[in-house]
Amino acid sequence: MKNINDISTDAPDDIEKSEANKQLKKMRKDIFSLQNLFYADGKRALLIILQGMDSSGKDGTIRHVFSCINPQGCRVKSFKTPTEEEKSHDFLWRVYANLPEKGMIQIFNRSQYEDILFPVVHELIDKKEIQERHKAINEFEAHLQDSHTVILKFFLHISEKEQRHRINKRLNDPEKQWKYNPSDKKEAKLWDNYIAAYQSMLDGCGKKNPWIIVPADQKWYRNYLVAKTIVETLENLKMNYPKKT
Amino acid sequence: MKNINDISTDAPDDIEKSEANKQLKKMRKDIFSLQNLFYADGKRALLIILQGMDSSGKDGTIRHVFSCINPQGCRVKSFKTPTEEEKSHDFLWRVYANLPEKGMIQIFNRSQYEDILFPVVHELIDKKEIQERHKAINEFEAHLQDSHTVILKFFLHISEKEQRHRINKRLNDPEKQWKYNPSDKKEAKLWDNYIAAYQSMLDGCGKKNPWIIVPADQKWYRNYLVAKTIVETLENLKMNYPKKT
Repeated sequence: MKNINDISTDAPDDIEKSEANKQLKKMRKDIFSLQNLFYADGKRALLIILQGMDSSGKDGTIRHVFSCINPQGCRVKSFKTPTEEEKSHDFLWRVYANLPEKGMIQIFNRSQYEDILFPVVHELIDKKEIQERHKAINEFEAHLQDSHTVILKFFLHISEKEQRHRINKRLNDPEKQWKYNPSDKKEAKLWDNYIAAYQSMLDGCGKKNPWIIVPADQKWYRNYLVAKTIVETLENLKMNYPKKT
Repeated sequence: MKNINDISTDAPDDIEKSEANKQLKKMRKDIFSLQNLFYADGKRALLIILQGMDSSGKDGTIRHVFSCINPQGCRVKSFKTPTEEEKSHDFLWRVYANLPEKGMIQIFNRSQYEDILFPVVHELIDKKEIQERHKAINEFEAHLQDSHTVILKFFLHISEKEQRHRINKRLNDPEKQWKYNPSDKKEAKLWDNYIAAYQSMLDGCGKKNPWIIVPADQKWYRNYLVAKTIVETLENLKMNYPKKT
């Protein structure tokens, strides 16, 4: 995997904002139809994982890309600081409890990868244990893929400057203040540590299940690229409405 | 409560289809915004219950009214035939496990009311037990209302003729065949028994938490009335984005 700092956080030059927004509008309709077919076809589950720095736009992606979907066929799970009960299990236990069944789309806002990011940044566990966890994650995902689950992992890639801008905006926009958490500023100071942890995360995933790196400084491009990837993935599944039995 | 057979299943004369669809489009945007505010405000939970005969449009209502919502703030639970584990508990156990927390919208596709409908129609339990169950439901809902949960109960009211038409359509439309269940025709023959059971259900609910009867033979009016009720309910809550702390 390339050095993460060498990958642009900006939208590429080959698409304009107005064109991307126009296509997003159409793709939201496609997702609405494809999701119905995916549910009816019922042969696979779809797991969508969103990871990225604080304020990289995980919530915003869900809000703007997926608010076209039938909520009966889609669930969202946000992984927060583990509860006491969750901590008394292995780190994949709470993930397992939220996996999608066939026909369902499950979105993870943060995921099992938090357990090889946060503890690394805060130096809570040693390198060997991180490697073991990553191996367990790779095996877990390979098992899911063998069990009819399609996995899409999006890394929302923003710049440090854009993060600072967004955190300040949260402090000043009356409709966004409620999202501000005093720990945001503290975590933001650990930027370089997070970049190193994300680099290991990206490097440690096998080719069978790679991350999709989404340049995310411009929200319109982020939404466009995530939607495009989902539409293409669903279209490639060659699904059918079941015949009368 | 009026006799259910005297309540029209048709859209009233004071609104046209084109106008209702235009307003629905606008209201879907309102629901999108209001849901964000509801989540941020975080003072209440919203429980939306959909009941109605087979093919009355419970799935369709969710698909067409709620596919505008941020799936991060909305969950749907479909209550099917109880599993062995569910049957080994009291009938409200599986309902409790799916209640919304503050800030969340929870949609029930069928609900606790199945347990005073199906067993009555099929004469599985006696009248006294049904009355006890209904009392338990009323107390349960009053408790939820006292605990910051807003409850909206929609009864989707269709005619026998429209049901027959829709079941036949399921058999012949390639995009709908997968929804057809051979038991649909069997249950449809019990129309009068179902009407009697629904009448008791409507009669047995207190004034504090009445059913909203939705004339549902025309899908456009059903979607319009459900959306309108939700928008008005959310607007009346006088919510605010929390201030910076």
